[in-house]
Amino acid sequence: MAFSIDVPPHRQGTKLPVVWYLSGLTCTHANVTEKGEFRRACAELGLIFVAPDTSPRGEGVPDDPDGAYDFGLGAGFYVDATQAPFADNYRMWSYVTDELPALVHAHFPVDTARQGIMGHSMGGHGALTIGLTYPDRYKSVSAFSPIVAPSQVPWGLKALGQYLGSDRDLWRKHDAVALIQDGNRVPDLLVDQGDADQFLAEQLKPSLLAEACADACIPLTLRLQPGYDHSYYFISTFMSDHLRWHADRLG
Amino acid sequence: MAFSIDVPPHRQGTKLPVVWYLSGLTCTHANVTEKGEFRRACAELGLIFVAPDTSPRGEGVPDDPDGAYDFGLGAGFYVDATQAPFADNYRMWSYVTDELPALVHAHFPVDTARQGIMGHSMGGHGALTIGLTYPDRYKSVSAFSPIVAPSQVPWGLKALGQYLGSDRDLWRKHDAVALIQDGNRVPDLLVDQGDADQFLAEQLKPSLLAEACADACIPLTLRLQPGYDHSYYFISTFMSDHLRWHADRLG
Repeated sequence: MAFSIDVPPHRQGTKLPVVWYLSGLTCTHANVTEKGEFRRACAELGLIFVAPDTSPRGEGVPDDPDGAYDFGLGAGFYVDATQAPFADNYRMWSYVTDELPALVHAHFPVDTARQGIMGHSMGGHGALTIGLTYPDRYKSVSAFSPIVAPSQVPWGLKALGQYLGSDRDLWRKHDAVALIQDGNRVPDLLVDQGDADQFLAEQLKPSLLAEACADACIPLTLRLQPGYDHSYYFISTFMSDHLRWHADRLG
Repeated sequence: MAFSIDVPPHRQGTKLPVVWYLSGLTCTHANVTEKGEFRRACAELGLIFVAPDTSPRGEGVPDDPDGAYDFGLGAGFYVDATQAPFADNYRMWSYVTDELPALVHAHFPVDTARQGIMGHSMGGHGALTIGLTYPDRYKSVSAFSPIVAPSQVPWGLKALGQYLGSDRDLWRKHDAVALIQDGNRVPDLLVDQGDADQFLAEQLKPSLLAEACADACIPLTLRLQPGYDHSYYFISTFMSDHLRWHADRLG
């Protein structure tokens, strides 16, 4: 499993806050590393930035039988699959929340009391569901163009059905809107969404998150950015805003 | 021919200075557009940024017979080829200095009295040779990791020989060090070079440029950046420095 980590200049012996960035469909760790424009802000704010891959990799890893972009390789959806033939390899929830943090904490100067999590699209789904599940561990949560309710949209129906099986009650732990409806809470959320995003109406549906947050009294800063699409040009434009949001909450 | 242009926010009716960015071997307009991290600085400084492609494209365009990365498609070397079978298509000098500027000036709010030029590697070669040829047009010139003396290094020997033929006197107009030796001048130059660049010793040889500039009394700011390689991580790190250099000279 490849990942990237950016450790900004710091005094030797200092521990730094960390922001975990989860990428979207079709991505690896490389997309945000090359195109995310996070390094300057991380250097100014003293944040470590970690970007994991989005799925298991390798010749022996089962993929979508038709090679579709939205399932299998590049589309792990940040769950631990329970269904054959995916259950052996597709354990991205455990990888992102346990295995990779243990590795990173052992080798880099991370202050584990100051962690934030963010992501884009499918990675926004990952950041929201992980943040809502472990609010004591991740003190700040934000997302670009997240899939907020995978149980209600085509991407999510396809992925959760094949990774987790047909019992939809088991999907609720991997659906941000359902998690909030079921009582999970975070202090606040930042979400940026381009209004020219081609996936906005069918797959992303940020209004479902807005409604759930309103009902749960979770302060949500939902910024609908005019003219922006689903691309990394959108992400890189507002990346420093998100990193400041995290830095403000990670101290 | 594809190119990218970034026009920063500005008052309607205002004309803005422009910086032309020439890319290196294997690149298209997309590399710097996606990974160059120029937009924030261009917005702050009020600079238009244009990134042309590095060679002609298309099924009918002759390529290196072995598909090598350093000749043919992606490796136009910013010359007008005179040799068959390249002379018909490989006219990147004319494209970058005439055809594309005419198009850009017709459709975007460019102040043609305030133009700068920069580039990376093969594109640094292009920026230096074009800047040294048209100092009245390009008021500022800078480069990342440029090929400063193609007549003296393998990349250049291969390309200039096949594009321009065996008469090396004809190569001198496309060799920055030779142009300076032949009397061409610019007010000053900025060059950044990573000291961990894998092409430094064999292909780039910045000391040849330093020597030529010293002999010609051209003020050269040559910054050897410790630990940096030939990649876009290097370029994006120092891009804003270069854009400020250009903005200072373009007013």
